[in-house]
Order: sequence, then C-alpha cells, then structure tokens
Amino acid sequence: MADANDPGLLTPPEISLLVDQYELTMAASFLREEKNEPSVFELFVRKLPPNRDWMLVCGLGPTLRLISEMRFGEGELDYLGELGFDQGFLSYLRNFRFMGDIDAMPEGTIAFANEPLVRVTAPRIEAQLIETLLLNQINFQTMIATKAARVVLAANGEGEAVIDFSPRRDHGVDAAMKAARASAIAGVGGTSNVAAAMRYGLQPVGTMAHSYVMSFEREQEAFEAFMRDNPENAVLLVDTYDTIEGVRRAIEASRRTGIPLAGVRLDSGDLPSLAAEARRLLDDAGMGEARIVASGDLEERRIAELCRAKVPIDLWGVGTDLGTSRDSPVVNGVYKIVADLRGEAWRGVAKLSLAKETLPGAKQVFRHLKDGVMTEDIVAAADEELDGEPLLVPAMRDGEIILAETLDEMRERTRRSLRSLPEGLRGDDGKPPFPVRNSERLTEAARSQAAGADGG
Amino acid sequence: MADANDPGLLTPPEISLLVDQYELTMAASFLREEKNEPSVFELFVRKLPPNRDWMLVCGLGPTLRLISEMRFGEGELDYLGELGFDQGFLSYLRNFRFMGDIDAMPEGTIAFANEPLVRVTAPRIEAQLIETLLLNQINFQTMIATKAARVVLAANGEGEAVIDFSPRRDHGVDAAMKAARASAIAGVGGTSNVAAAMRYGLQPVGTMAHSYVMSFEREQEAFEAFMRDNPENAVLLVDTYDTIEGVRRAIEASRRTGIPLAGVRLDSGDLPSLAAEARRLLDDAGMGEARIVASGDLEERRIAELCRAKVPIDLWGVGTDLGTSRDSPVVNGVYKIVADLRGEAWRGVAKLSLAKETLPGAKQVFRHLKDGVMTEDIVAAADEELDGEPLLVPAMRDGEIILAETLDEMRERTRRSLRSLPEGLRGDDGKPPFPVRNSERLTEAARSQAAGADGG
Repeated sequence: MADANDPGLLTPPEISLLVDQYELTMAASFLREEKNEPSVFELFVRKLPPNRDWMLVCGLGPTLRLISEMRFGEGELDYLGELGFDQGFLSYLRNFRFMGDIDAMPEGTIAFANEPLVRVTAPRIEAQLIETLLLNQINFQTMIATKAARVVLAANGEGEAVIDFSPRRDHGVDAAMKAARASAIAGVGGTSNVAAAMRYGLQPVGTMAHSYVMSFEREQEAFEAFMRDNPENAVLLVDTYDTIEGVRRAIEASRRTGIPLAGVRLDSGDLPSLAAEARRLLDDAGMGEARIVASGDLEERRIAELCRAKVPIDLWGVGTDLGTSRDSPVVNGVYKIVADLRGEAWRGVAKLSLAKETLPGAKQVFRHLKDGVMTEDIVAAADEELDGEPLLVPAMRDGEIILAETLDEMRERTRRSLRSLPEGLRGDDGKPPFPVRNSERLTEAARSQAAGADGG
Repeated sequence: MADANDPGLLTPPEISLLVDQYELTMAASFLREEKNEPSVFELFVRKLPPNRDWMLVCGLGPTLRLISEMRFGEGELDYLGELGFDQGFLSYLRNFRFMGDIDAMPEGTIAFANEPLVRVTAPRIEAQLIETLLLNQINFQTMIATKAARVVLAANGEGEAVIDFSPRRDHGVDAAMKAARASAIAGVGGTSNVAAAMRYGLQPVGTMAHSYVMSFEREQEAFEAFMRDNPENAVLLVDTYDTIEGVRRAIEASRRTGIPLAGVRLDSGDLPSLAAEARRLLDDAGMGEARIVASGDLEERRIAELCRAKVPIDLWGVGTDLGTSRDSPVVNGVYKIVADLRGEAWRGVAKLSLAKETLPGAKQVFRHLKDGVMTEDIVAAADEELDGEPLLVPAMRDGEIILAETLDEMRERTRRSLRSLPEGLRGDDGKPPFPVRNSERLTEAARSQAAGADGG
C-alpha cells in the first residue's frame, strides 16, 4: 500500500525494486526474446569531475552484499504484476539471484576517466538488473571518498586529524552511513555518526553543541557541569558568546574541577588569530596537552591554507563539504555493455553516440610505477597480459563474494595510493592530467568497431 | 559486531543511533544535571543557498514517522555501554520515546532564510536527541524539492513534463527514495525509481537503455523486439548509432509491427536540431501522437532555453541535476535552542557567535499576499497574533503525529506556492530578495538579549 509519509527505509527484499523501471522492461523483453546470453558491463566515468584529478574508488564491499542479497519478495512481485509485467517474467524474478562474476578495483584504489571501476560478467538480465543499485552506491561513495582524501591531504596527510561531522548534511540515512565509511577508508580519523561507528567499527567522536552551553545560566557553569560528567574527554565549545573569554572559562573550569581539559573547539570567527591566542592561553595555563579542534564550514582549501600558515589546530571537524563534496558534487559514473557471447565467441560492442562513445570489449587496467610513483595507466583488453599492476581483481564469482577486506586493508591501500600520486596531483595546483592510454589491441578493436557498426 | 562491508541499511531501532555522538554526551549530562526542562529548538537556514531565492520545504512526513519510531534496542544500548555511557543514562534511553510537540511548515511551502521550518518543543533531552535525524532528513529533501521545483518552472511550469531519472546519481538508497518523493511534491510527473513509485504511489516511468539496442545485431531488430514486448508504451532510444537514422528505424519498426510508436528518446547531440528533425519525420509519418523525450545531463537553465526556443520536446528526463542539485548542492539548515522553561517562565536564549547569531524565543512566520502574490513575511514571536497566514502549523502533539497529508495535498500546496511567487523569483533572473522582517516584539527581544548576555 502506497503511503505518502512512509519512512522510506528499504531492506531486502524491498531493495530489489531500487531499480530504474527500464531495467525491468528490458529484462522482461530479453527473457521473451531469449537474449539472456552472458554479457559484460563496465562501470566507468567518461570525464573526471571538475576540480578533481583522480578518484578514490569506494563502495564496493557493501554493494557486493546488497547485490548478493537482492531478491524479489511477493509484495514486490504483486506490484510489478499491477504494472503489467507478465507471469513468465514474474516467475523468473521470483527465483532471481545474481549468479555472475564481478571484477573491480578494490576500495582505496586511485582511478581515472575511462577506466572500468567495476566489470560485471553475467547473464544479460542479471547484469542489467543490478545497474541502478551499483551506480547508486558506487558513484556517491567514490565521490565522498575522493573528497575526504583531498581533505586528508590538505591537512598535511595527517588523516587522523580529520573528523567526519557530516550526518546533518548527508543525503539521508544510507548516505550518512556510507559517508562515514568512505571517509574512514580515505583516512579520516573518526566520525560523529554513532550508528556508523557501531556498524563499521569506526572511532566515534564528539564534543558539545552551543545548545548545551545555552542551557545553563552561565557559560562557566555549563563548562564545569560538562567536565564533571565527561571527565575522560572534555572538549569544550568556546565560541557561544566570546571565544577568548570562552577559552579562559574553559581553563578555569579545568582548575575548579581538577579535571584535565581535553581541548577546546572553535566553530566561528577568525581561526588563525583565535587558535593562536587559545594556544597561548592554554600553554600559559600549563595545559599543553589540551587540543584545539576547529569546525564550521571547513573546506580543503581553507584547511590547506591554515596548515601552511602553521595555525595551531590539532583536529579538523569537516561536515558539509565532506558529506556533499560541495566543490564537485557529482561523480558521473555510467554502466555500459561492452561485450556479449554470440554462439561460441565474445563480441565486443560499443556505442557511437556523439561524445558518448564506449570502447568495445572487457577491459583491465595496468598501472605503472617508478620509484613508488605512478607514471602511466594502460587500459587493455581483459585477457591481455601487460607489464604493470592489474587494478581490477576478482570480487565475486558465480554470485559468491570472494573479496571482503577489512577496513584496515582498505585504509592501508588508500595510504599507499595517495603516497604514489605524482606530486602535481596531490593538491590543488595546476597540473597536467595523469597519462592514461589504451593498449594497441584495444585501440585497434575500437577502430574496427567504429568502422563496421552503424546499427543497421 | 562491526563489519566493514555491512550493507548499512538501518531500520528502527537501529535508526536511533543515527545521531552525532555529542547529542548523546550532552543528553547524558542533562540527565545528571537534572536539566531536562521543556525547551524549544528551531530548524532554519541563516542564508539562502547560492543560486536560490527561496526554498521549497520538504521531508516532514517521513521525518515525523522516523522520530515517532525512534527507540533504542538492546544492541544499541550495549554499544553505548561499551562507549562508556552510564547505566542511568542507558535506562533512560531504554524507555526513550519522543513525546514532544512539533510545529512546522507543511511540505510544499516556500521558505526563506531565518524562518523556522520546524519548531520542536520538548523536554531538553528529547529535543536534543532528534537533532541529527531531523537535519539529515529535512536539509537534503528541501534541497531536492527546491531544485525540482525550479526545473518544473523551467519547463514552463508543466511539471508533469518532468521525470525523475536520478536514482543512479542519488546518494544511496534513502536518498533515491526521498528524491523521488521530493520531486513528486515539487510537481515532477513521474520517476524511474520503481521502489519509490511503489512505496509513495508515484507514476513509474521508463524507456530503454543503449545496452538494449546493443544487445541485438541491428538497431532495427532491437526496436521491433522492444515494440512487440511493450506494445502499450514503446518509447525507443534512438541515439545509439545515428539519431536521425534511429528515428527512421523507429518509424519503420512501428509500421512493420503495426504497434503505435509512443515516442522516441534523445540522449545526446544537438537537441534543437535533432528534436525538430525527429518531430518532422514523425509528423510526416502520421505519428503526431509519438512524443519526444529528452535526457542526458539536462539542467534547469538548458531546459528553460529549449522551452523558450520552442524546441518540440514533450518530456524531460532529469537525473543528475535533480538528485544532486549540482548548481547549489547544500541546504545549510541548523537546529538551535531558542527558549527553555526556567521555573514558571519561558526564557528566550540566543547565541552571539560572530555571523552566527540566533534570535531568541519560539517563532512563527506570517505571510502576506496581495492579489495572490506574496508580498512580505513577518517573523514574529510564536504567541503574537499578526495579520497574514501563519506558516507553521501543528504537526505533532505529545509525540503523536497530527499532520499527515496525502501526496496530492502536498502537490497542490506546491502549485499554490509557486503561483504566488513574485515574478522576479520565478526564474533565474536578477531580482531583489524577498522581504522578510522581524516583528517589533522580536526585534526588541533580540536587542535586550544581545545587551544582557555575555555568557558570564
């Protein structure tokens, strides 16, 4: 029953209908036309997003799980019946289970345009029906991991110094969970999101809000109460009235309660002068261990600037810009068929639409490094054996997940990836694009495809 | 147990932990300090987002349900125990239920900066614990509804002509569900998202993808198969190889199968010339009923331009820009305490942080119209009785939802709202900001607050 105010939180099997209607329409037609041969689809971006020189791939782990759990329940089938889908197709869906293969760049890999991030090999209908879910998950998680990695680099690569404060600006519940996870994979040190911390084993972090201070008659009283109730980790928000006066009161609260001050948080005003003055007051009070936390619309360029100026800030709480990737809010990943099996032979297929061409055939990417620094990527046919590190690895076989990494493994890959970035790609400077070229065989395949195919 | 690859789809009671950790830390402290008096919090934006002259409020219905279903289960309580929260607080949470009052602008209302969209009156801890969820839901849904309404206006206000194609660019599962719902409330005519169509009673819409065409040897063959299998609604995607040739093949497919052509979809290339030529070919073939659907990175300014040029496009499929609000990807809503009960009397409270001041006291907004056009909003104290339409209405009382509108009611409010916009605020032209002023009483309250409060 439709309900205009439903909370909208899907779980399996409902998740199976998070699909663009045309996937179902096409699937029903493929079933009738007996065109369910093995096929290969690839997920890639045609162009890097604006203000981005690379992407940090993210989202694979949870997406594999969602795909493996995709089932059509009776409620979903009834609805599809109402929409006019025939009984034969509904019977097919009743038994649906994704049984294909997936190869993918593991999370924490650096990727560029026209490189497949995910390659799906499956009967055509199965490959088609996971399209929406795959794009819905990989696109935005890759966007957020990329942004988070840039923020980490801006904070001098001291990732543990950056904290995810984004839940209030993330796009709903799933986005908040995945933003915390993607940030952690990118090297962020903690999250304010308790559900994500619990579910993904992240470090939960929190200070206090202005509402706490304002709930007491006097700021001094609020600080002392908070310290008494949180003796282990009292970070006091000092800018509700007057920031420097707030720092003095924080010091006084620590003296009166005898509880060490864990830190102060600055959420507004001129950070360079306030942080310097706060540091001086804290040091003079013998509270050199107290950390300075900054927040309030912090962004990678601002953080890089403050770090360059050696402003004494120890922790960066980043919310809006992390959760929305405001300066580049779209990763335009697409999912395209590149090959299918005709009789005994695989046939590479390609689209010729203006400015939206695809390269035919299943692909692999080989990365070359020199002295630990990335020098070139070669996009090749999947069965070519070239020098370099192959970036796509087996993730699922016959519907079984075979790649399930720990968070530490993903975080370690990110660290290696970011260290291997050529100097010009690490920051916000002008730089030549990273060289990605096609192998000779792939170039030839594309040429003959374009010459031969007019769809006629 | 933490699991790095968990699908991350929360349901009640897990949703209770979608909370910034500091909400819990503060709540625990309020409990110990016996500071759980009734208090008032308001959700508002300090500044309109860039490229936006107004917001279309959205997200209240599902959010009220999430709030009313918020419970802390034993798994969540165990985790909070591990984090160090004491037994007294965990006992409080075990019995937690939001029992407060909520007043809010109903969905489909136009709002401006510094107007409360939602006002919460509840014991301090309850009001504090719903902060993250409220902001997480209302901010992005309002952002998407606002963007969708602008797209609808760009398409000459013919909302039914705009279709939500956003699931692949939405930020996860919850975002996709709410983007479809927010778009529908804004006047969009249908969605490709089948789960959202089912759950919210929306019109599901779909055509075909390039992968369908490319799964056949010849485009002609693909078109005929698709028409046979979808005789009721065959919209053919014609740009896989050569668009105009594709239109000719679509016409031919209709002739050969004897099935009427519902339409053609253009997804790339020069839309003005391609749409004109497609229209001419279809009309010449006696297929004047066949509609032209456009898609492919369509954006409000592009749509407005094509409409002004009278390009013969009947339906607009909008994905990325609808789902991400790319040209203005943040609604910076905040949630601030404005009053609490001290003994017998309500005390207005306000923050003085530089450029982040708040106005003290519970507020209402009165809207003035002249000849059906909005002329001025007055932000007033909640208990003032001024002329004009009060925009905040009762939505929840003692934890019970009392405002539950149908989609039609919300859509109708949007239509009225958009019709009442002053001419200068309807499009993308330069315009003076809409006048919003504070009532005399509110102005006076703010002045005396600022003079008296230094937090000392």
